[in-house]
Amino acid sequence: MANILRIRLDTKTYDITPVPDKYRNLGGRGLTSRIISQEVPPDCHPLGADNKLIFAPGILAGSSVPNSGRLSIGAKSPLTKAIKEANAGGAAAHMLARLGIQAVVLEGCAEQWTALKIDKTGLTFFPAAALQAKGIKTCIDSMREIHGDSVSVISIGQAGEMALTAAGIAVTSPDHFPRMAARGGLGAVMGSKKVKLIVIDDAGCTPPEVKNKALFMASVKAFTQGITSHPLAGGLKRFGTPMLVGLINELGAISTKNYSQGKFAGAEKISGEYIAGLLDSRPNGENSHRCMKGCVISCSNIYTDAAGEVVVSGLEYETLALMGANCMIDDVDIIAAMNAVCNDFGLDTMDVGGAIAVAMEAGVLPWGDGPKALQMVFEIAEDTKMGRMIGNGCKHTGEQLGITRLPVVKSQCLSGYDPRVLKGTGVTYATSPMGADHTCGNALPSPANPSYDPSAASGQAPVSQFLQRYFAAIDTLGLCLFAALPPLDMPELQKHLIDCVSAILDESLEEQYLMRLGGMVNEEERKFNKAAGLGRQDDRLPAFFKSEPLWPSGNRFDVSNDELDSVHN
Amino acid sequence: MANILRIRLDTKTYDITPVPDKYRNLGGRGLTSRIISQEVPPDCHPLGADNKLIFAPGILAGSSVPNSGRLSIGAKSPLTKAIKEANAGGAAAHMLARLGIQAVVLEGCAEQWTALKIDKTGLTFFPAAALQAKGIKTCIDSMREIHGDSVSVISIGQAGEMALTAAGIAVTSPDHFPRMAARGGLGAVMGSKKVKLIVIDDAGCTPPEVKNKALFMASVKAFTQGITSHPLAGGLKRFGTPMLVGLINELGAISTKNYSQGKFAGAEKISGEYIAGLLDSRPNGENSHRCMKGCVISCSNIYTDAAGEVVVSGLEYETLALMGANCMIDDVDIIAAMNAVCNDFGLDTMDVGGAIAVAMEAGVLPWGDGPKALQMVFEIAEDTKMGRMIGNGCKHTGEQLGITRLPVVKSQCLSGYDPRVLKGTGVTYATSPMGADHTCGNALPSPANPSYDPSAASGQAPVSQFLQRYFAAIDTLGLCLFAALPPLDMPELQKHLIDCVSAILDESLEEQYLMRLGGMVNEEERKFNKAAGLGRQDDRLPAFFKSEPLWPSGNRFDVSNDELDSVHN
Repeated sequence: MANILRIRLDTKTYDITPVPDKYRNLGGRGLTSRIISQEVPPDCHPLGADNKLIFAPGILAGSSVPNSGRLSIGAKSPLTKAIKEANAGGAAAHMLARLGIQAVVLEGCAEQWTALKIDKTGLTFFPAAALQAKGIKTCIDSMREIHGDSVSVISIGQAGEMALTAAGIAVTSPDHFPRMAARGGLGAVMGSKKVKLIVIDDAGCTPPEVKNKALFMASVKAFTQGITSHPLAGGLKRFGTPMLVGLINELGAISTKNYSQGKFAGAEKISGEYIAGLLDSRPNGENSHRCMKGCVISCSNIYTDAAGEVVVSGLEYETLALMGANCMIDDVDIIAAMNAVCNDFGLDTMDVGGAIAVAMEAGVLPWGDGPKALQMVFEIAEDTKMGRMIGNGCKHTGEQLGITRLPVVKSQCLSGYDPRVLKGTGVTYATSPMGADHTCGNALPSPANPSYDPSAASGQAPVSQFLQRYFAAIDTLGLCLFAALPPLDMPELQKHLIDCVSAILDESLEEQYLMRLGGMVNEEERKFNKAAGLGRQDDRLPAFFKSEPLWPSGNRFDVSNDELDSVHN
Repeated sequence: MANILRIRLDTKTYDITPVPDKYRNLGGRGLTSRIISQEVPPDCHPLGADNKLIFAPGILAGSSVPNSGRLSIGAKSPLTKAIKEANAGGAAAHMLARLGIQAVVLEGCAEQWTALKIDKTGLTFFPAAALQAKGIKTCIDSMREIHGDSVSVISIGQAGEMALTAAGIAVTSPDHFPRMAARGGLGAVMGSKKVKLIVIDDAGCTPPEVKNKALFMASVKAFTQGITSHPLAGGLKRFGTPMLVGLINELGAISTKNYSQGKFAGAEKISGEYIAGLLDSRPNGENSHRCMKGCVISCSNIYTDAAGEVVVSGLEYETLALMGANCMIDDVDIIAAMNAVCNDFGLDTMDVGGAIAVAMEAGVLPWGDGPKALQMVFEIAEDTKMGRMIGNGCKHTGEQLGITRLPVVKSQCLSGYDPRVLKGTGVTYATSPMGADHTCGNALPSPANPSYDPSAASGQAPVSQFLQRYFAAIDTLGLCLFAALPPLDMPELQKHLIDCVSAILDESLEEQYLMRLGGMVNEEERKFNKAAGLGRQDDRLPAFFKSEPLWPSGNRFDVSNDELDSVHN
């Protein structure tokens, strides 16, 4: 990977140039955030011509390090008005790496709806008017028909075209399911540039050369053995992330009824165990599915209906928590249908779920009314005022309806973990440059670390700080979170992972490499956000988490502001 | 005026206590902002129980100083998320002063819809369930029926109950027309407290005693003669603020087609001259009407329809600019009808006008379509999703519809003066602690000051700084802006005005009193805003004013950020 592909949409021109020194040895989130910091005016409008949309495979992409195919997508976010990176699995990152492309930078705005194709000959612009107002499935099917089944497609649905702040960007898995880089409204940025989709075709390419082959082979082997031997692997393979429904509900921390409860009476009916049994019994249902080549965990599923028709792949914890428990909906078929519609329109299920719960709190529809909630999601692509309200996410919906209990930080809806029980996660929600986001540092209890109390009022900042740096580094490597969790319990795996990076970069990296890298990424992101106008007051949880006790624990979020501020000091 | 009336809505209790030292010798905006700074947590939710809603007559209220009956209303704003004061004329301020009440402070939130009555015996709580979802006219009529025609009524309409961020608070004029403290969503704050209205009855009260009577009488006389002799007085008496339509259009600075033009082809049809002629010809039409006792200017009008039925009083420049030119609507009957609906629902015509123009830019309705625009305003109280979108103002509507050209600062819609031509006003928009607001310092060209160039790229900050301080002081005195303009051209009038204050406060005030007072008020407000999380990036105009040349002048807003920041340095 040695080139940057810059695409100037207003003039329909592009160039492919060697990576300059300032972007060397970076990938994924570290690279998207570096390019934004260097090239995007912090005070620009996120949907204007000055914003840039950047796609970057991680440092490990294209290699045989397992689970290393996450694609980072970055821009200034129309939701958080801050720097943003969202990543997804799928096939595109590995392909870009094989094409020798370390980042694709979309600049300016096209005049007409445009499709792009990247292959070994360079870039081609196509008109995309025929796909306007079409869903993501149609985009993928249409591209497969034209370009064959071996391409990967990055596309937006109606939501991105409509500039909705809950619009995400879909990246196809090897078997052509859409995986969403969902958060922060990056789909709206792609829509503002009038780019409907990007086809990536790596035919004729070879994987990037690894400099230190001997070290690499040995390290990959040891790392792979380590993560597959970790106790987490078995659970994820069988139940996937829905496994968390039972665990987090048991902790009293699952987002329920717009974050007014920590336990959901219907948890069992949306649990990993229940879903696994259901999919075992249904034709074509699959509980152990990979979203990218080289995955050794297979945490995804293929959710089918009773007739065996695919509804969605995969149905994840965050969707079950935000569209299920948080809306008091305990019908997993309805939740899967809502998820499928979001995946086709190109929407973040979390912010949309948060929006529906707020609408329920406002009395727009009854708590737990799955069919009405599904109808509401359908309305988004119909471009009704209701649809546009919900499609702009939790905060916008709450503001429109006059609801004060809005579970958002930097305007982004929280994940499915209540910060009154999981206070380290709460510190991450509050202080991450990304806005509320569990993937930036979710401080769950772990058998390997029995002394950690997730509900203690103090001592959470160092935990969150460590995790925020660690996962910023992981996002820069392009590694899946679930390959990154075992090394937290097994320090020798961190060494193997760093050795993989050393072999690829042909540099001898020190033991603290990940902390140094992640710290640097967070710091650059904070600096951009400061220049964009964000300050300490944006590093806070909404007041109701401090004042309202959570049922049943009675916990409040009582980490001090000083401790929150210490994360970045 | 010597007492603070504190009303605790959650417990239905109140007390009336002498003004403490920290609030002495203050009134109006200076007092609302001081109380907010001292008592409201800057990080509180504006619609939560920790916010306070404060009503304060100005320092001069109750006296015979002309035009001194503005009532300031303050709180943390749900629109700007910053400190807010909006003021209105009407009868309430003089009455509160006669009741010896320097401020009414609403604390906490009532459980049921409540009405309050303040009279010389103290405070009475009434249930207001019967008035729920009723408009302001019904509130006023109902209270007149119960309490007689001599009371003043402060009330919210449906918009405030719905917690819309364009909701204002109405204060009745002596002849029972509603005057709006429109800006910043203060009606939503009143709604969040479940206070539908406040009746004020000053029967049996006498005006507050003036300490230095001799000085006072002489100064009032000289001040009154001065302002009535100023050339402005004649124009305002005949045409009112609609006089500005022709002047600002001639300057090429009238907000037109969502701030994409500075001249409006239909300007003549919505001009003061046209309206004056129309009202001369219509039964019961009136061009010279007072909104408060003691007014010597009479800039208001009574706009009647062809049959002589009152539509609205008064129809003002800002409404004509934002609902007229900015929406390309040139039918003054339609604009008056939109204004009347806003006055009844309790809405800011400026932010609603800004919202409709943004909806027109998004293609939701055609440019200039008055009947559709009127229908859209009607929808607000019908609580449709469209209505809630528009009723949350310009920024919310633009975000929902994905429009990037949003003429807002600190989320508040600009007034009807384009900052590319009137750059001093632009500096005020950008840097006022109140968000975009012409009343905080509108730097219009003046024959008395021919050397001032409103379109120069530099030298605007000192002009805006002076005006921001001056008008913060004027708002603290409770003086109408139009009584405050002549002293800008005639320095001796400033002396007479300060002598009036000296006589009332029984203090010998220095020549720089107004600058000192206004500077202090602005500084306190800035300090609150900083603690609430606002920073320099919030003191900026939207980028399109810098990049898009304005037709026909070709002007851009090119005042530097350094100059903007110098206003408060």
